[in-house]
Amino acid sequence: MEKRDVIFNGREKRVFATDDPGRIIIHFKDVTMGYNSIKKAVFKGKGEINNRISAMLLNILNENGIKTHFIELAGEKEMLCRKIEVIPLELIVRNKIAGSLVQRLGIPEGTVPSEPIVDMHFNNEELGDPMINGHHAILLGLVNREELDMIYKVARQTNDILLKVFAKAGIDMIDVKLEFGRAVDNGELIISDEITPDTCRLCDMKTGNILDKRRFLKDLSDVVASYREVYAKLSGSLN
Amino acid sequence: MEKRDVIFNGREKRVFATDDPGRIIIHFKDVTMGYNSIKKAVFKGKGEINNRISAMLLNILNENGIKTHFIELAGEKEMLCRKIEVIPLELIVRNKIAGSLVQRLGIPEGTVPSEPIVDMHFNNEELGDPMINGHHAILLGLVNREELDMIYKVARQTNDILLKVFAKAGIDMIDVKLEFGRAVDNGELIISDEITPDTCRLCDMKTGNILDKRRFLKDLSDVVASYREVYAKLSGSLN
Repeated sequence: MEKRDVIFNGREKRVFATDDPGRIIIHFKDVTMGYNSIKKAVFKGKGEINNRISAMLLNILNENGIKTHFIELAGEKEMLCRKIEVIPLELIVRNKIAGSLVQRLGIPEGTVPSEPIVDMHFNNEELGDPMINGHHAILLGLVNREELDMIYKVARQTNDILLKVFAKAGIDMIDVKLEFGRAVDNGELIISDEITPDTCRLCDMKTGNILDKRRFLKDLSDVVASYREVYAKLSGSLN
Repeated sequence: MEKRDVIFNGREKRVFATDDPGRIIIHFKDVTMGYNSIKKAVFKGKGEINNRISAMLLNILNENGIKTHFIELAGEKEMLCRKIEVIPLELIVRNKIAGSLVQRLGIPEGTVPSEPIVDMHFNNEELGDPMINGHHAILLGLVNREELDMIYKVARQTNDILLKVFAKAGIDMIDVKLEFGRAVDNGELIISDEITPDTCRLCDMKTGNILDKRRFLKDLSDVVASYREVYAKLSGSLN
């Protein structure tokens, strides 16, 4: 696989074309952004550890029958992926209530729903990534009804799998953010983006320590060390 | 039916107990409030005309197999209703896009969805009546899964019926807000509140004239005259 031009230069990731039009290489930067890019920092080693964690988790999903864009690792900070047409939706599956939903619903952080809650947001920075429902997603032309049903189903299945994987590693997965796209080679709906401590809320089950991006957002120490701890715990529990 | 004490004194309505614990009398005030009660006015005759419109429409729903709290008119500004336990949810069924959804989705006012869109809001002024989804409604303990499915189904059916009733009267029903409750006598889920130009967006099909509460909100003239026009058109088309 030959790496070619940069086709997208995002805040935290860079995407390269390859000699195969159906495949891309995703490069994880050391940059971290928060609060709609108002807060920014560089953490040496973050790109590499997120690349590893994401590769591991996406690979587990692939092996469990959940189709994702991940093909294989392509370097310390890079992975080879199927190229997708982006669907600008964010699905958040919540096993406990945290973040913006605490304010929206006026309920305590940590509330446990009887079954996981799925929120959908329209990925549109200009509009502030508003929460929407399935009807809105169809109206906006982002998905058809069949794709919408599929996205909800796959989001739940993915959450079930990841929840168990993290639990086995002694980590409580509070929520997970998922994105989807259509593979450019055959149009199938697959999970895209990353699954890392930047996109999940994670806590050590024993100590309650925060092991995710909130360390950066809340100005806690040891951001990369915590991400490495997540990787170590996951690796340890898989062997 | 004997009218007893006021049990609830709202901004635009007053509710009286009766000698039957399962029945109440709802009194429609001439008061109109907008923008979370920041804007207020009194329009002589508004209570009476809203009472009439609501009675007519709720009666049509009853006759079409949709259970509502409406029993019968009980005076110029009053209707006899089944007493309910309020469910603090607002369902908005949209046949065209208008209002807050224009900003939320960044699409033009008047956009027509392929099928009616249903939004759900948590009736909680302190939280700003936030948009929520079905999962949130269950988490908040407002409804169980069965009631949620029922509410969505009845909201759609109600919209279908009202859309036709208004169309026959030459009125375009852009959207309708619905509320639900559990009848205190037997616990069944029924439509509550009112269905009036205060809770629907309505336009004259020929002239495009606005015939609803937006006349008050946008400082247009002839608020009550427009509501009377709605009543006259509905009455005329039913005879």
